[in-house]
Amino acid sequence: MKDPRVVSELSTPAAVIDLTALDSNLTTMAQVLPGDRLRPHVKATKCTALARRQVAVGHRHFTCATPREILGMVRAGVGESYLLANETLDDERLRALAAVQHEALIMIAIDSTETLDAADRAGIGNVVIDVNVGLPRCGIPVDDAGRLADDARARGLTVHGVMGYEGHLMMVGDATEKQRKVDESMALLRQAARDVGGTIISAGGTGTFNMHAHTGVTDVQAGSYSLMDTQYAALGLPFAQAMFVLGTVISRTKDWAVIDAGLKSLGMDHGNPHIEGATIWFVSDEHITFSMKSSELPRVGDKVRVTPAHIDPTMAMHEVAWAINDDTIVDRWGIDLRGW
Amino acid sequence: MKDPRVVSELSTPAAVIDLTALDSNLTTMAQVLPGDRLRPHVKATKCTALARRQVAVGHRHFTCATPREILGMVRAGVGESYLLANETLDDERLRALAAVQHEALIMIAIDSTETLDAADRAGIGNVVIDVNVGLPRCGIPVDDAGRLADDARARGLTVHGVMGYEGHLMMVGDATEKQRKVDESMALLRQAARDVGGTIISAGGTGTFNMHAHTGVTDVQAGSYSLMDTQYAALGLPFAQAMFVLGTVISRTKDWAVIDAGLKSLGMDHGNPHIEGATIWFVSDEHITFSMKSSELPRVGDKVRVTPAHIDPTMAMHEVAWAINDDTIVDRWGIDLRGW
Repeated sequence: MKDPRVVSELSTPAAVIDLTALDSNLTTMAQVLPGDRLRPHVKATKCTALARRQVAVGHRHFTCATPREILGMVRAGVGESYLLANETLDDERLRALAAVQHEALIMIAIDSTETLDAADRAGIGNVVIDVNVGLPRCGIPVDDAGRLADDARARGLTVHGVMGYEGHLMMVGDATEKQRKVDESMALLRQAARDVGGTIISAGGTGTFNMHAHTGVTDVQAGSYSLMDTQYAALGLPFAQAMFVLGTVISRTKDWAVIDAGLKSLGMDHGNPHIEGATIWFVSDEHITFSMKSSELPRVGDKVRVTPAHIDPTMAMHEVAWAINDDTIVDRWGIDLRGW
Repeated sequence: MKDPRVVSELSTPAAVIDLTALDSNLTTMAQVLPGDRLRPHVKATKCTALARRQVAVGHRHFTCATPREILGMVRAGVGESYLLANETLDDERLRALAAVQHEALIMIAIDSTETLDAADRAGIGNVVIDVNVGLPRCGIPVDDAGRLADDARARGLTVHGVMGYEGHLMMVGDATEKQRKVDESMALLRQAARDVGGTIISAGGTGTFNMHAHTGVTDVQAGSYSLMDTQYAALGLPFAQAMFVLGTVISRTKDWAVIDAGLKSLGMDHGNPHIEGATIWFVSDEHITFSMKSSELPRVGDKVRVTPAHIDPTMAMHEVAWAINDDTIVDRWGIDLRGW
C-alpha cells in the first residue's frame, strides 16, 4: 500500500482536515483567548497531532472527557496538565491515571462524596469541584461546593478550584440575551469558587468562547472551534469549517448520486450532514443519497466533501485523519484518543 | 487488569450481549429462513464471534457492506462465501479482496460499467448485479441489468445472479400493504434475474424477513434481527432485544440521574435510546440525563442498561462486546470487523 499523495487517491470514507482552515481557527482563538486563557477540549478532536498544534500557538493545559484521552495525551507528551472535566467511578481507570501523576498534573472533576471517594481510593492527588451552573447534567449544587472541597482537603487531596459548564447556553441565538445568561450562570460559579478556593475557575465552550472577558472565568474549555461543524457554523462564529468526510460517488442516476460515506462515518445526533449545493435525501449506514442541479451532479468515481453536523462524534468514528493543503496530502494523523 | 466476571464489574460505557436473547433470535430466524435461505448481514454486528453462532445454526453464506468486513470474515474462517452487497471503486480494497479469492467465494455487487471496470481491473472473478427495486440508492435499472451481466461475462467474470434491497419498505406498518409492496418490488427483481441468469436472487432485511416465502428470492440479507434495536422493536417482530449499552450513574440529583454512556457509544440517527422506565432528557457526547419515578431513580455507582435506537452504528462504535448470561460475563467478543 503506497501512501496517498492527493485527495483523489484516498480510500473513502476518509476524514480530511484542511490545515489552512485549522490553523486559521487556532490563530483566531489564540488571539481572543491566548495561552492559558484557553484549556482546549480534546474530546472534540481526539487527536494528539492536532493538540500539538494547539500547544504551538501557546496553550499548555487541556480538558479531557475520558481517562483514555488523558492517558493518550500524557503518553504523547502533549501539554502540561489535564483536567478530566467529567465524573468517573471507575477504580481501574482512576488508578491508571494515578499511575501517571508523576509525569504531568492530572486533575479530576468531582461533584459528590461518591466521586470523591473513588478519586481518593485510587490515589488521585488533584481535583476540581464540578458545579452545576444551570445545565441539568453533572455538577454539585452551588451551596454544597465548599463542603465537598473541605472534605477533599481533609483527606489530603489538593483542590485546584471549580469548573461549571454552561452547555445549555451554547446555542442561544441572541448575543445580548446569551451574554446575560452566561453572566448569571458564571455568577453562580464565582459564588462556588469563593467557597471552594483554589486558582481555577474553568467554564465555557465554543459557543460562548468570547463571552468570558468579564465573567471571572480563568480559562475556557472550547474544543469544536478547531474543526467546526454545521451546528456551530449556524452561530456565525469566526471559525471556518476545517474537517470534512470525503466520499466517492459509487452509483448515480440522472436524479440522484450515492456516495460511500454514511452514518457510520458521521455523527448524526444533530441531523443530516451537508454537501455543498446538494439536497440530502437520506443517510444509510454506508451511503448518502443526494440530488443537485443535474448539470452539477457528480459522476461515478468523483470525490465529494461532506460537512458533519456534529464534529465530536464524527471524529470518534475514524481511525485516521488526513491533513491536507488544498488537494495535497501533507500528513496522516492518528485519531489516537478514541474510546474510554 | 483482571477480567470482569459480572456485569457490575464492567468499565462503562460497555456493549453487552445477552446470549439467551441472541440465541433465541438466531433460532427463531433459522426456523423461518433455515440454512442458505438466510445470508446474514454482518454490517449490523461487525463481530466474527457472533457470526460463528450464525454458522452454528446452519447459515454458511454471509452479506457484507465493506471490504474490511469480508477480509475479517475470511481471516477468521467464518462462513463459506461472502457477498459485498455494495458498490466500490476502490482499486486497492478490491485487489485485497481478489488476493483472498482462493480462500473463499467472494462476490462483489456491481451496478454500472464503472463498477464492473473496477472489479475487472482488480482481478475480481465473481459478481452479482445489484438492481434498483425501488429504494433510491444503488442498483441498476431493471431493464439494463441483463446488459451489464452480458458485459461482465464477456470479460470472463462469473455472474452469480442478482440482488436488490427493498430498504424503502422495511418500516411500512401495515402487513398487508407491506407484503403487496414487497411483491411488487420483487417482481422487478425476478424480471432482472431472468435477464441476468445465475442462481442467486438475494434481497430483504430484518423488516421483511418473513415476506419472501413466495417472492422467488433465494436468500434474505437480514442482520439486525440478531441483536435488535428500538426501531425494529416497533415492528413487533419475534426477536428480543439482545444488545445493550451499559452505563454507570456518575451524578444524580433528586430530579435526574446522569450515566456515562452518551452519543459516542450509541447510534443516534434513529433518535434517542431507551432506558426502561425513564424519560430521556438529552444525550451528550459522554452522558445521558434522564428522570424516572423518584423512588426508582438509580443511585451514583448503579449500572443502567440502555437500548440503542439503531443497532448497526452502535456496534460500530465499540471495540468489544461482553457476552453475558444474566449478570455473569461469559466471553469477551472483539467487534473486529469495524472500518472500511
